[in-house]
Amino acid sequence: MERIARQGLLYDFYGALLTEHQRHIYEDVVFYDLSLSEIAEEQGISRQGVHDLIKRCNKILEDYEEKLHLVKKFEQTKKLAREIQSLTKEFAGSSDMNLIHRIEEISGEIIELEAH
Amino acid sequence: MERIARQGLLYDFYGALLTEHQRHIYEDVVFYDLSLSEIAEEQGISRQGVHDLIKRCNKILEDYEEKLHLVKKFEQTKKLAREIQSLTKEFAGSSDMNLIHRIEEISGEIIELEAH
Repeated sequence: MERIARQGLLYDFYGALLTEHQRHIYEDVVFYDLSLSEIAEEQGISRQGVHDLIKRCNKILEDYEEKLHLVKKFEQTKKLAREIQSLTKEFAGSSDMNLIHRIEEISGEIIELEAH
Repeated sequence: MERIARQGLLYDFYGALLTEHQRHIYEDVVFYDLSLSEIAEEQGISRQGVHDLIKRCNKILEDYEEKLHLVKKFEQTKKLAREIQSLTKEFAGSSDMNLIHRIEEISGEIIELEAH
């Protein structure tokens, strides 16, 4: 996964656990693609200060993922749900009952994933 | 939801964010149903100390849920997956194509839930 995409995903899941100040600057870099110099000027802190804050946020977010694995788990669930979607379309064209059994199996896998 | 069930669920999701000491005592109360006095004796702390620690853990876990809503979201996903499971069984008995369309819709709802 691209670094920015990964950062965005981690932020989606755990961003609420950062401080408002961290969130503001992190969004400027990751979502609005502002340069460190631009943010430094806007915030009245050094370029190095912005750099350190982003690095610290990345670490905080990765630490949460290492403990909770939510990004990984949600990605797996999404993948299984997409598989069900595609199997329903395939079934509409083929009426192959094996596809229905496979859909039932996959829904069971989702329940397992979500069950803890 | 019963208090103990709720505590167990929150712990499943966010327990990894507690300290090892907190986890140990929290499990003794919530999963092993030990009394405060038993734990106080085992840990060499006061009964009140155990009581305060549990209360603090409950607050930490509820705060994470308030920010991240994972328990709520996972419950919704699980409910939808169960619905798919039950619709596949119903389809096997009826061959009603509307059920297939409903399954496709529900898988889309799961993807939405997981997409953020």
